[in-house]
Amino acid sequence: MTISQRRARLRRRLAAAELDAMLVTDLVNVRYLSGFTGSNAALLIRVDDEIPLLATDGRYRTQAAQQSPDADIVIERACGPHLASAAAAGGVQRLGFESHVVTVDGHTLLARAAGDVELVRAAGAVEALREVKDAGEIALLRLACEAADAALADLVAAGGLRPGRTEKEVCRDLESRMLDHGADGVSFETIVAAGANSAVPHHRPTDAVLAAGDFVKIDFGALVAGYHSDMTRTFVLAPVAQWQLDVYDLVSTSQRLGREALAPGASLSGVDDVSRQVIADAGFAENFGHGLGHGVGLQIHEAPGISASSAGTLLAGSAVTVEPGVYLPGHGGVRIEDTLVVGSEDAPTPELLTRFPKELAIL
Amino acid sequence: MTISQRRARLRRRLAAAELDAMLVTDLVNVRYLSGFTGSNAALLIRVDDEIPLLATDGRYRTQAAQQSPDADIVIERACGPHLASAAAAGGVQRLGFESHVVTVDGHTLLARAAGDVELVRAAGAVEALREVKDAGEIALLRLACEAADAALADLVAAGGLRPGRTEKEVCRDLESRMLDHGADGVSFETIVAAGANSAVPHHRPTDAVLAAGDFVKIDFGALVAGYHSDMTRTFVLAPVAQWQLDVYDLVSTSQRLGREALAPGASLSGVDDVSRQVIADAGFAENFGHGLGHGVGLQIHEAPGISASSAGTLLAGSAVTVEPGVYLPGHGGVRIEDTLVVGSEDAPTPELLTRFPKELAIL
Repeated sequence: MTISQRRARLRRRLAAAELDAMLVTDLVNVRYLSGFTGSNAALLIRVDDEIPLLATDGRYRTQAAQQSPDADIVIERACGPHLASAAAAGGVQRLGFESHVVTVDGHTLLARAAGDVELVRAAGAVEALREVKDAGEIALLRLACEAADAALADLVAAGGLRPGRTEKEVCRDLESRMLDHGADGVSFETIVAAGANSAVPHHRPTDAVLAAGDFVKIDFGALVAGYHSDMTRTFVLAPVAQWQLDVYDLVSTSQRLGREALAPGASLSGVDDVSRQVIADAGFAENFGHGLGHGVGLQIHEAPGISASSAGTLLAGSAVTVEPGVYLPGHGGVRIEDTLVVGSEDAPTPELLTRFPKELAIL
Repeated sequence: MTISQRRARLRRRLAAAELDAMLVTDLVNVRYLSGFTGSNAALLIRVDDEIPLLATDGRYRTQAAQQSPDADIVIERACGPHLASAAAAGGVQRLGFESHVVTVDGHTLLARAAGDVELVRAAGAVEALREVKDAGEIALLRLACEAADAALADLVAAGGLRPGRTEKEVCRDLESRMLDHGADGVSFETIVAAGANSAVPHHRPTDAVLAAGDFVKIDFGALVAGYHSDMTRTFVLAPVAQWQLDVYDLVSTSQRLGREALAPGASLSGVDDVSRQVIADAGFAENFGHGLGHGVGLQIHEAPGISASSAGTLLAGSAVTVEPGVYLPGHGGVRIEDTLVVGSEDAPTPELLTRFPKELAIL
């Protein structure tokens, strides 16, 4: 799908909601609908016009023309209000705006600029489109996941996970290897958690030293052309204890069941339930205190959420994580996480993007 | 100043504005007023109570107790609305909220939870306090600037700026050295711009190769305990041309005049003007297209702005950058930037935090 096709999808939805146009001010949504990546921008999309109007400031004149060749571009620092007044001047009567993004003060400025135009809440309209990835997006997610896979493989092959290194050292080593494999950056703060720290779901790397017998939990991702990968693997530094084998096996089973439940049309809370039930049956319900997964794309967390409280169903072509964990405070924890693309009715098997092995590695 | 003294300053300002309490939802402001650094939080500060009420979710139970020992803590995922209803239950009548941060949809939820409580816009109230740094903050800014100074000194000493390296290689090398010197991370995306790229004010590092005769402009900073440093230096790779000497000398003079104009009570636009005038007199007004500087602290850009359109005056104890530049499209550009702390009436000389030399280095 081209970027203009993304806009065409949005325009059909706007028409169905009886809106004449939409003012997009979330910068990730602006990027999705225009290709423009600058730090100050807004986009006006009219139902009756294929050409969008992109506003940005003078720093980005050249960049905007390069990245959004099929948009009309206006240079103006107050992007949102300028486009609201342009909508008014252009005869728009009902203008959608991103009420989950626009601040109270920002809304006052928009309303002043919009004059008689009715500002209508259209929260999440673009995010709903973004939930289903097109072929170009999936290609970029693959590249991001490949960079992360390759970096972790290099780290392990180089003996980078060994007693005596600190969590911070492992973190820097891994991040550097992602850049070596073509990542533009990291997709979120890398988690490296050794020993008892692995029982903290979102531990930040410290000077704690990896030791024999530790679980080492690593949750990380690469950023490629704006797209995020997300993967968790948990290792053991020998010798391994029986309780570690048991916990790992449990999480591994849960994660496999979760992956196998990913199908277009599956209920989101049902997928969470399938994966969670086996952990609860083993008596560890209290030790898995977060949702099973989330969408991933231009943001590290986006629609859909996959948890007990999620409404709705999985859509074909969405990209999601499956990441159950069991955390035993004071001892250690295991999380295993993949990023996958949900299949279609015709080909329901999801595509696994994070391909680093999941069998327990005892290093 | 302790964190409770920061809250006392805010409480006096709230009382002066005839507010009974303030609901703080901006996470940087929550951190400033409570010490808590989690990713989901809100803070209720009452004029008549020294003990604030901090809301966060279950992930942060332990961390909140450690970081905010003098706050009452409530575990609740919908932090803002929960505190709005707590304010209503506690007899608050006029409740300030951050109208520059709260979204339109967020405001609807707050209003529903607040019942009869009047929600009053209090945009920027905490940011105004943050403009003047206390001793603890200045100590952290010093550490951040020292890490950046040391990293750049190491890079130059190791021959890291030489023909044949790419901008990206220099960027990674410099960032790695900041971590070696104690930085928790980088304070913004590092700019390394060689040759004609140095004429782009906010160039992102590419695979462009450094070559003899290039300007190499480096704008970067270290993050230490939440505080950001910000420094730009421009080098020449030999041989140097006369036009490069001339441009560097001009920017150097402008930057010195700007630093010398930093005094408590000085008009912000006046400081910009002093620095800009010498560039304009040399005929390069069009080649210096951005403001002179900005405040720096828990955010890389915060109050005050120092530009032609800035209202107000410099406050004693604020931390600001001074960063004029001259950019010659297609040829190259020079920016020289320091971070300084504005002095007091009794000791008006600003403290220079970024101490790496500013004489032109021809490498």
